[in-house]
Amino acid sequence: MAEQEVVLLDEWLSMFGSRARIALAEKGIKYEYREEDLSSKSPLLLQMNPIHKKIPVLIHKGEPICESLIIVEYIDEVWKETAPFLPSDPYLRAQARFWADFVNKKVGDVGGRIWAGKKEEHEEAKKEIIENLKQLEETLGDKTFFGGETFGFVDIALVPFYPWFYTYEALCNFKVETRCPKLISWAHRCVQRQSVSKSLAAEKEIYDFVIDFRKKSQWD
Amino acid sequence: MAEQEVVLLDEWLSMFGSRARIALAEKGIKYEYREEDLSSKSPLLLQMNPIHKKIPVLIHKGEPICESLIIVEYIDEVWKETAPFLPSDPYLRAQARFWADFVNKKVGDVGGRIWAGKKEEHEEAKKEIIENLKQLEETLGDKTFFGGETFGFVDIALVPFYPWFYTYEALCNFKVETRCPKLISWAHRCVQRQSVSKSLAAEKEIYDFVIDFRKKSQWD
Repeated sequence: MAEQEVVLLDEWLSMFGSRARIALAEKGIKYEYREEDLSSKSPLLLQMNPIHKKIPVLIHKGEPICESLIIVEYIDEVWKETAPFLPSDPYLRAQARFWADFVNKKVGDVGGRIWAGKKEEHEEAKKEIIENLKQLEETLGDKTFFGGETFGFVDIALVPFYPWFYTYEALCNFKVETRCPKLISWAHRCVQRQSVSKSLAAEKEIYDFVIDFRKKSQWD
Repeated sequence: MAEQEVVLLDEWLSMFGSRARIALAEKGIKYEYREEDLSSKSPLLLQMNPIHKKIPVLIHKGEPICESLIIVEYIDEVWKETAPFLPSDPYLRAQARFWADFVNKKVGDVGGRIWAGKKEEHEEAKKEIIENLKQLEETLGDKTFFGGETFGFVDIALVPFYPWFYTYEALCNFKVETRCPKLISWAHRCVQRQSVSKSLAAEKEIYDFVIDFRKKSQWD
């Protein structure tokens, strides 16, 4: 029943869209994927997310759910029988939400200042992203996934940034692997899952998009 | 059992701290309140929230929970027997999370640009906050509370901003009530609850703090 009428309004390169795709794939949910042209948003997107007008939007039985982490929690709550993303213990749930929120505030934001920011912002942004990724590496520690042995909420929140590392590295001249080797090993474990590998954009495709965007913006 | 050892690291004027206080009061949880001096943060705060170094921090059985909305959800999940903040239906839960997140992104941020921002930013910030409060008023509609008849998650997220309106209005020369009369009626309903009224700072106290802050910053 719950699987009826699932549509995802998305844009393939979006890390936020990837979160929704991974969550749907982990639960084995069939859905209709609709690619949005963000330079000319569809009437359906504007109708379904009139507040932020952003992808991803999950439409389930005609009702829209917006904001990627809220979508992931929604999917976890509706399709709760298989592969829970959040643990059942309230403290561990709060911890998972804290680190997913950290990814939004401390990786998403500074990542944006790298790929869409001016060259003079890059030195500061590079320092910040390295520091923030190190904090994530520290909380990961020697665990397989952020929640322990099970792939879950924080992994889904963070792994879509992994194919963007190539672009961050190229623009800011550093290697994440040198600074955060355990984080890269974790990313390799994540992409061994088909749910992840088939839901991520290719790093070269992201890079080409960004270079083209930066040329048009005359920032380099 | 669950009530043992609850401590709140907080700062009385903080709207984010108020959220935690309201949630604890709604559930009838006894706790130790510890006021932080944010110009000289306590070793306990730095130890309990080493990542953001911000209040509020809820310490329950020695374990810290950070970020106000995460604290409110944690309280709802641990003390689940009384007065649930979130509905049980996944779609309504997603909606509540969406609007609480909207308050963070669209009221908290622009509110900060008013009270802590330079005078030349005020005209733009005023337009934005009016527009965003209107969107909240529209989603509230004629309901008693954001979730319907029951005081809940979005109410807890938003009502701590209510005593700040006085300062926004004074600095930007407008009246929220003229633009959003239903929102002000909703706020009046909220403050009839003791859980709310005893957890909010006084508007005059907030105003005096802001005026003092702005004098020291030489912004006015």
